[in-house]
Amino acid sequence: MSRPTAAFSATLEVDLAHEPGTLGRLCTAIGDVGGNIRALRGFGKVTGGVLREEVIVDAASEEHVMKICDAVNGLDGISVITATDRTFRMHEGGKLETVSRIELNDTDDLSMAYTPGVARVCMAIHETPSLAHELTIKRNTVAIVSDGTAVLGLGDIGPEAAMPVMEGKALLFKEFAGVDAFPICLDVSSPDEIIETVIRLAPTFGGINLEDIAAPGAFEVETRLREALDIPVFHDDQHGTAVVALAALENSIRIVGKEMQTLRCVILGAGAAGVAIAKILLGRGVSDVIVCDRQGPIHRGREGLNDAKQWLAENTNAEGVSGTVGDAMAGTDVFMGVSGPGLVTREDVASMAERPIVFAMANPDPEIRPEEISDIAAVVATGRSDYPNQINNVLAFPGIFRGAFDAGATDVTENMKIGAAAAIASAISSDDLAPDLVIPTAFDRSVVPAVAGAVADAAQADGVLRA
Amino acid sequence: MSRPTAAFSATLEVDLAHEPGTLGRLCTAIGDVGGNIRALRGFGKVTGGVLREEVIVDAASEEHVMKICDAVNGLDGISVITATDRTFRMHEGGKLETVSRIELNDTDDLSMAYTPGVARVCMAIHETPSLAHELTIKRNTVAIVSDGTAVLGLGDIGPEAAMPVMEGKALLFKEFAGVDAFPICLDVSSPDEIIETVIRLAPTFGGINLEDIAAPGAFEVETRLREALDIPVFHDDQHGTAVVALAALENSIRIVGKEMQTLRCVILGAGAAGVAIAKILLGRGVSDVIVCDRQGPIHRGREGLNDAKQWLAENTNAEGVSGTVGDAMAGTDVFMGVSGPGLVTREDVASMAERPIVFAMANPDPEIRPEEISDIAAVVATGRSDYPNQINNVLAFPGIFRGAFDAGATDVTENMKIGAAAAIASAISSDDLAPDLVIPTAFDRSVVPAVAGAVADAAQADGVLRA
Repeated sequence: MSRPTAAFSATLEVDLAHEPGTLGRLCTAIGDVGGNIRALRGFGKVTGGVLREEVIVDAASEEHVMKICDAVNGLDGISVITATDRTFRMHEGGKLETVSRIELNDTDDLSMAYTPGVARVCMAIHETPSLAHELTIKRNTVAIVSDGTAVLGLGDIGPEAAMPVMEGKALLFKEFAGVDAFPICLDVSSPDEIIETVIRLAPTFGGINLEDIAAPGAFEVETRLREALDIPVFHDDQHGTAVVALAALENSIRIVGKEMQTLRCVILGAGAAGVAIAKILLGRGVSDVIVCDRQGPIHRGREGLNDAKQWLAENTNAEGVSGTVGDAMAGTDVFMGVSGPGLVTREDVASMAERPIVFAMANPDPEIRPEEISDIAAVVATGRSDYPNQINNVLAFPGIFRGAFDAGATDVTENMKIGAAAAIASAISSDDLAPDLVIPTAFDRSVVPAVAGAVADAAQADGVLRA
Repeated sequence: MSRPTAAFSATLEVDLAHEPGTLGRLCTAIGDVGGNIRALRGFGKVTGGVLREEVIVDAASEEHVMKICDAVNGLDGISVITATDRTFRMHEGGKLETVSRIELNDTDDLSMAYTPGVARVCMAIHETPSLAHELTIKRNTVAIVSDGTAVLGLGDIGPEAAMPVMEGKALLFKEFAGVDAFPICLDVSSPDEIIETVIRLAPTFGGINLEDIAAPGAFEVETRLREALDIPVFHDDQHGTAVVALAALENSIRIVGKEMQTLRCVILGAGAAGVAIAKILLGRGVSDVIVCDRQGPIHRGREGLNDAKQWLAENTNAEGVSGTVGDAMAGTDVFMGVSGPGLVTREDVASMAERPIVFAMANPDPEIRPEEISDIAAVVATGRSDYPNQINNVLAFPGIFRGAFDAGATDVTENMKIGAAAAIASAISSDDLAPDLVIPTAFDRSVVPAVAGAVADAAQADGVLRA
């Protein structure tokens, strides 16, 4: 059974007979079935010899919560009155609200914020369109756009069901970088319709964060929107992961004493993240990159490749390695997995070059569990928060949009992403750097300002600033 | 010259020689050129014999602010250091922000609001789509949709320039009714594109408020979106004005002692508001309605009418009155203008039936100024806040969406609008009712709960509730 977590926590209202030892029996019973008590709040009110307590308990699954309730109800003099799923409770009514940034105390304030005063602001923008970036929410607002076709690990669940993820992402934008973000979940049936719709929506927003859109359509959506729009467009599933993986790699090679230019890297997974990782590694100067999909290494000799994989065939795997993933991994310095659980063996890792770097980023279950290779890999990273070195996109996207907005950038270039990766890496000092600390945690508040500064600098260097 | 208002107010930083009488000369000079001082804030700091004061002054125009500055600079020992337009300052960075409704204190909170906990919420919605109305912002969020083709009195200024109005409207939704509203300004070139785009956006929102879309396209947009979507769709320029005008009429006929069913009404203006006023009056039982456009009364004999006007030709003006607006007004009980300034004369009003009711709602300048007819009209209303009886949409739309959301309504029916009008009217007690008080002010906090309740009741009666 997995560990109990807050994600499966419940609030139990429990009635106890007001007798010595009852609370102890309650706690013991919960512990005996693997529940983790996070808080106990007595209301202190005894009615007819009965005390009501609120118990917040972490569980491993919904079934586990029921099992805990059954265990409690099986006790003499103790019964569960209500059991509330804390995650669902938190989502009631949605997680976001849209509020005023200005004070509205009287009709005079209203006459400036709305008619008649607002008319002058409208006409100023009509005459000088760039003022939209100063006088409207476009200044600081990102649309988090999804069609719900590739949500988390859940697949094509549709736009309504994708909303809670996009709302959660908006919270992260605001919390970490002060960026206002609004979820836009679209009922569409093709990449063309996403592109068309986002172009129509663009007057409202200062940036577009594409999210959980199925590959390979997502590549086309990003490419064509970057061409069509004069605001930053960023497909987080591609570039967020790529930026953070590069950051972790920057620090990992310091530990193993290798150079970026001479690394040999294998990437497993040719979806959104895999393609972007390949591109950012090439952009950072890595010359030897091989990308594998379910059929093994992608090379020029393969047929029936989609556009993204055809690009990889032409720009990676110069030696034309074929065969299996394991074949490709032999002798390589770096493995980066963005595929699925258990696809790599200890033997595969053992066949790598000395001091191998293994980023097994498949979520929630990695390509190989860190404990299986702790003795033979120099550095291991995963996508999980319960292992060291979590490759977490939240280290990248808030600071990237913060920096783009601060600079007035019209695009997110490869150099801006590479700069962001270097800034994330530099959040780990030389003194702290260690095999189990190559990447800062999501809550390291030094990351966003560093990323934003690096991104703004790179935007200026690349000349992608609004005039 | 118009009156000084907050809409044209400025903050002046002024340096004054620290000598007796200087402040008096400053205030006198501003008053002499017609400026209205709202506040004077001394920083209390004298440097080198100079005192710096902040003067907030209402003016009548941007030119007037400059004239005030010139007057101040013409004084001995006094000079304006900076002059800041308060309306533009208020708009810097936009007027809205998107914030969290939940507490995010630690990684456990994050694991419920975002991955991995959020996945269960997504799957619950995927399995039971109606849960989107409980577990996402759809519960309480309206899209304020505009293409910027008919913004205020400014015309087709485009989607970017329309944003400040839609942001202001969102403030009103939140302030008056706790409804979250988000501006969606679209770069589109036809009503078809608006309809297509809003249908694609609908998974995100619980309601659609159409705003400042040019007629007659706006009629088609509203009609087709109401058919296509299972969430309330409301074109405020039509129905907001119609609801509030009907509310004012309900109270006006109590004053003049007439019955709704036997009223003879002329409406001038056959755009969005005029058509909706005609429909709500018919829905409320008024049998004799004549709508006029620039060419005079609309009747069956006219050719080249658009769909909306053709509908009016077939459903109003049973007697087939033709000629001028003045011809139509002779002998009528009620005039409602939603057209342009100065289109009605004192003689036109004098030709109406006894105790005429005149709503001259053209903005900012009414069809006829109230002072011209104060001795011959029984009740006069306008769209302006500086006359009694302001017909202000803000009395309607916040409560209508509040009621629709509270009830889980899938539509906004004519009965819901008529109910809203009655609720607004009832905010004026019989004791308070008077010719210059037939409609509550925008800041009457009793209005929204009353409107919301009436709208929810009517939704239930009409059977337009989500299952």
